[in-house]
Amino acid sequence: MASEAAADEASDTYSEFIDKVERLTNLGHAGGVLGWDQEVMMPEGGTPARSKQRSALSTVTHEILTSDEMAELLDELEDEDLTDEQEAVVREVRRKHDRAARVPQDLVEEISQVSSEAMPVWKEAREEDDFSTFAPTLERLVELKREQAEHIDPDRDPYEVLFEDYEPYLGVETAERVLDRLREELVPLIDAIRESDADLATETFSGEFDTDTQEELARDVLDTLGYDWDHGRLDTAPHPFSSGNQFDARVTTRFSPDEPLGALMATVHEFGHATYTLGLPREDYGTPLGDSRDMTVHESQSRLWENHVGRSRAFWERFLPKVKERFPDKLDDASVDDVYEAANEVYEDNLIRVEADELTYHMHIVVRFEIERDLIRGDLDVEDVPEVWNDKYEEYLGIRPDSDAEGCLQDIHWSHGDFGYFPTYSLGSVLAAQLFDAAEDDIENLDEKVAEGDFEPLHDWLTEEIHRHGSRYTTDDLIREATGEEYTADYFLDYVKSKYGELYELDDYQ
Amino acid sequence: MASEAAADEASDTYSEFIDKVERLTNLGHAGGVLGWDQEVMMPEGGTPARSKQRSALSTVTHEILTSDEMAELLDELEDEDLTDEQEAVVREVRRKHDRAARVPQDLVEEISQVSSEAMPVWKEAREEDDFSTFAPTLERLVELKREQAEHIDPDRDPYEVLFEDYEPYLGVETAERVLDRLREELVPLIDAIRESDADLATETFSGEFDTDTQEELARDVLDTLGYDWDHGRLDTAPHPFSSGNQFDARVTTRFSPDEPLGALMATVHEFGHATYTLGLPREDYGTPLGDSRDMTVHESQSRLWENHVGRSRAFWERFLPKVKERFPDKLDDASVDDVYEAANEVYEDNLIRVEADELTYHMHIVVRFEIERDLIRGDLDVEDVPEVWNDKYEEYLGIRPDSDAEGCLQDIHWSHGDFGYFPTYSLGSVLAAQLFDAAEDDIENLDEKVAEGDFEPLHDWLTEEIHRHGSRYTTDDLIREATGEEYTADYFLDYVKSKYGELYELDDYQ
Repeated sequence: MASEAAADEASDTYSEFIDKVERLTNLGHAGGVLGWDQEVMMPEGGTPARSKQRSALSTVTHEILTSDEMAELLDELEDEDLTDEQEAVVREVRRKHDRAARVPQDLVEEISQVSSEAMPVWKEAREEDDFSTFAPTLERLVELKREQAEHIDPDRDPYEVLFEDYEPYLGVETAERVLDRLREELVPLIDAIRESDADLATETFSGEFDTDTQEELARDVLDTLGYDWDHGRLDTAPHPFSSGNQFDARVTTRFSPDEPLGALMATVHEFGHATYTLGLPREDYGTPLGDSRDMTVHESQSRLWENHVGRSRAFWERFLPKVKERFPDKLDDASVDDVYEAANEVYEDNLIRVEADELTYHMHIVVRFEIERDLIRGDLDVEDVPEVWNDKYEEYLGIRPDSDAEGCLQDIHWSHGDFGYFPTYSLGSVLAAQLFDAAEDDIENLDEKVAEGDFEPLHDWLTEEIHRHGSRYTTDDLIREATGEEYTADYFLDYVKSKYGELYELDDYQ
Repeated sequence: MASEAAADEASDTYSEFIDKVERLTNLGHAGGVLGWDQEVMMPEGGTPARSKQRSALSTVTHEILTSDEMAELLDELEDEDLTDEQEAVVREVRRKHDRAARVPQDLVEEISQVSSEAMPVWKEAREEDDFSTFAPTLERLVELKREQAEHIDPDRDPYEVLFEDYEPYLGVETAERVLDRLREELVPLIDAIRESDADLATETFSGEFDTDTQEELARDVLDTLGYDWDHGRLDTAPHPFSSGNQFDARVTTRFSPDEPLGALMATVHEFGHATYTLGLPREDYGTPLGDSRDMTVHESQSRLWENHVGRSRAFWERFLPKVKERFPDKLDDASVDDVYEAANEVYEDNLIRVEADELTYHMHIVVRFEIERDLIRGDLDVEDVPEVWNDKYEEYLGIRPDSDAEGCLQDIHWSHGDFGYFPTYSLGSVLAAQLFDAAEDDIENLDEKVAEGDFEPLHDWLTEEIHRHGSRYTTDDLIREATGEEYTADYFLDYVKSKYGELYELDDYQ
């Protein structure tokens, strides 16, 4: 009888805890709807009220997460006999609670205040190409974020601590190791490509493409891949993104008359994110079991669909006829190989991260990673950022920005106080290759299936191995469960070397 | 020194209070965005998650409103020396706090539970034309709402108490007096119209009107009236509505090929609501001083623009050329008088409230008011609703529904537990006439200005007299300040008698 009573008690405590967790999740998703609306639908004049609405939601969420009741429930539950799933929920909430509760409210508010003021300052500095007007704000943000890290854990490297906001389990040393390796192995590959005489069909999509027709084509590609319109929608946004939950996962893209391929690939990328979200277990909506794992895993899903599917020959065997149908006068003579080459061109002189190809992209990330890590560790002064940035671009990519607008002022992240976010873009791409390789092992003739437009086996594999687990496993455990191996860059490097070795006819790489 | 210290204390208390009030308001507006999105943008499959998000927001809001801290702050502030504006804020929050705090949490949750279950039951009952399947749910809702009213004030008529959720200051006896008078004076007027031989140009808008072009025309009408697109947007929704705040007030309408005039008038109606919202003081966003007064006043703004502007000859002098431009093949021969007649036709046999004309509309309201009042007072059994409904339609409008689907099952309100809402539709129309008369007194040649498309003087008058005051005054004070008189149905009755007397050539009414 005694043990039954104890079990009952545990279960009451747990259900009180889950009520709070669900409330937190729902308020978070409500904030997500406000964010989506602000980017996609809101008239510009709505900003002052919307900022206050979002900030009220953050404050309320923060209060629930850091409340004494939450602290007590977590303490009690950690002494209880819980199921594995319950333990996973407690683990995730504990981590967020501790990180939030250790930072004084004043500092939270100051960071939020300074970063919301930083946005327009950064925007103007970029427009005016004047880093010096943004530098004092950036310096303040670096200080505040160092302070935040110190509150969370005074005994650890502050960049390591901040990085865990975006990827809590792989560890910054993994990020460092992987990014170092990417730099070491991709710089020579990129060099070799620059020296190649291969003549790729990069002009396949030249000309002007009507944007309304492009939108129809974006809907076609989502139809082809199996996007669930009952649980999603497509809109346009200045910076494509996806958002939502397993009942309602929306994507956005953007159209420009001379970038039809860019719009398509952005759509496929966001489809990857949305498909992950839609694959989360519906019965666990509201708890970490129904929430996606963090940035690395999310980005692995978008990159897998974008790069390993969307940029593959097999995909274009399926999809090129649709493009020709929508644009009969443009691509009549184009072959699958032409489109494949156009979709995988390695740009010679692109300075802009969001316009980068699959390969040089990672050098953009390495630059940002090295700079933000050194800023937060106190090894680099803000005033030196432009020169260091330009030097690194020259060293890794052989190009040097003429202006800070096209250099260290191009991204919004730091003005939000997001230090530690950039590496997850590369970590995700690396994981995409590892997962795709495992999927190829498990699914017979995956390539042929893609060429036939049969995406269900891949979709099912990803749901089974990744999506349905929500945040039940830590990132490293999830990868181990899905692939039977530790997280590794081997597959990504093999993939790009063989792919680009063949495309650019590089003897050393095929 | 002592009194200065006391003033400081009051000011600290007040600012702590205002922080909470702003948080409440912002969470409320966040809920509004979720509601708008659900009606206008959300894919259907999103419902389960959205319901939980909205319910989390309601719970959090309810907790803040009814918290001990809020009760203490209100008590303290009622002992302080406050400015008139501060007193108004305290008055509004006190009222909402008391109403919410007096109802036990269990009952709140049960009402929310039962009414969310009621919606699909009502929908199916309406589809199947079977009142008996909805009756038990309706009975339960009536019981629960009576119980709620008893908690709020056990010494007063429960319908009176519920009515104050929608119109807190005019009093149910005013509603009763006005609605009785409308019934007494409009039934004979409607009878006279039915017997009139006048031949109105009711076929002016016959044929099929392309809905894309209708949407352009809806944008034209909003442009003509001066809608601020930087702070609003137009979309379609199955049931037109408006929502938002003074920075972002959106409208919706709906289009059907054979109802171009209906779409236009719905657009003008929602424009009236949005214009009120946009006229609220921006500097007071977040407190009752920046919130609209309740349903009566809001509906007065939509009806004023819809009926007194949108259905006037002067307006059509301005706008008919635009309609002819958009639909050149349809309305070439139509005169301003033709359109005026078409826009003011009194329907012979319409059973549906939302499709009613300006005049018979109020009989639809009277029927609902009398029935819901008697239900809540315990003077009518749910099972008798269909027969009473049909008898009243026969008595007041001379038509009898063949089915409950076209009778007592047509409106969603009761399935939401909204008893006391309906009367505010009529109270608002009545107020619209009173306000428009006052505006005509103050603005020289208002009619000519409308005909010239100069809506600014009317807009300014409404902002000055109504919008900018937010909820600073009670409804009755606001009306007295704006018109110099008590709230009265005189102007409305004069207006309809003279308008319809002329239109239908009624000797007794001109």
